[in-house]
Amino acid sequence: MSLILYYAPGTCALASHIALEEAGADYEARRLDFKSAEQRSGDYLRINPKGRVPALVTDRGVLTESPVILGYIAQTHPQAKLAPNDDSFAFGDLQAFNMWISSSLHPAFAHLFRPERYVDGEQHQAAVKEKCRSLVADHFEMAERTFVQGPWVTGDAYTLADPYLFTMTLWLTRVSGLPPLETYPKLADHFARMNARPAVQKVLAVHAAPA
Amino acid sequence: MSLILYYAPGTCALASHIALEEAGADYEARRLDFKSAEQRSGDYLRINPKGRVPALVTDRGVLTESPVILGYIAQTHPQAKLAPNDDSFAFGDLQAFNMWISSSLHPAFAHLFRPERYVDGEQHQAAVKEKCRSLVADHFEMAERTFVQGPWVTGDAYTLADPYLFTMTLWLTRVSGLPPLETYPKLADHFARMNARPAVQKVLAVHAAPA
Repeated sequence: MSLILYYAPGTCALASHIALEEAGADYEARRLDFKSAEQRSGDYLRINPKGRVPALVTDRGVLTESPVILGYIAQTHPQAKLAPNDDSFAFGDLQAFNMWISSSLHPAFAHLFRPERYVDGEQHQAAVKEKCRSLVADHFEMAERTFVQGPWVTGDAYTLADPYLFTMTLWLTRVSGLPPLETYPKLADHFARMNARPAVQKVLAVHAAPA
Repeated sequence: MSLILYYAPGTCALASHIALEEAGADYEARRLDFKSAEQRSGDYLRINPKGRVPALVTDRGVLTESPVILGYIAQTHPQAKLAPNDDSFAFGDLQAFNMWISSSLHPAFAHLFRPERYVDGEQHQAAVKEKCRSLVADHFEMAERTFVQGPWVTGDAYTLADPYLFTMTLWLTRVSGLPPLETYPKLADHFARMNARPAVQKVLAVHAAPA
């Protein structure tokens, strides 16, 4: 059975989609229509009770959470060399970057996209968005200064950290009120290199296509 | 070289500490004094630039993020059987639970502990705390209804998901304004079983000891 990735345009499922493409995986990508709340439909909740994307359907069952899916793609497609699969320390060190995204940077962005998840009332929501723009910027500053080695996240090797960082940087370029990409020279270079990769171009075109 | 775990009482480092103890690991636990902001001292930032705990110092370098540290402990102490180490799908499925904690439940709690991270101003912060108490409760409801099999998180086997859930449930019992533990029968049973384990009792006593 081939893999099935559930995604929606504009979400962090982009990272898993790019990784599947880079790995040369046998997969099908299925788009959910978030505008009609398809992610909260009964059919989809039976696949992923969290009502979120990405979800990856395998012949063993469903995996969720971007770092899990990225790690699974790397481990089941070793020829793509997306992670040091047989080295517990190096694999964990790489995943620590991805988990920092999923536990810190992505939740900071979530306050800009869906402030109503964290507070009721328009004035309160506006205040949360203002503060969390600073929080997002602080996180990108940390990535630029401390985490990203360049040209790729871990240095010379392209890994499963790169499409996830790219997804965050893409959001940076699309959300108003955040620092311009050029504020972060290593991230800007990384973003340009990612946009030049055929797998990235292919997946971005799929996500940009009309429903 | 033995492992060194940096922790502070009241933090999610409790989960990694319990896992080290359950694994019979050769480790030393070093407490940071958060009241004097020791986690932001130059000495500690050289170990973990994020200024957070847990951090695990190994002979290869430093690992951060609870799911990474828990996974590393399981993989390097296979005799403890804390995870299905040689099964990419099952390991990922287990880690998806831990990553749900680190990306959803823990960040929801963070709004109650440190609302100033997300918004300026006392009135805004009070509104955030009110909404996020509901968010935390929604997440526990999801854990009770969907994720936790019982008696342990994944069923009959005690795994690296259990000390992490326990840490969250401990917070539930200590933070005012949240539903009582009895609201969640499976979680209440899990909490009682965890408290009965010698490794848990030993680590809780270390965390409760005066500085």
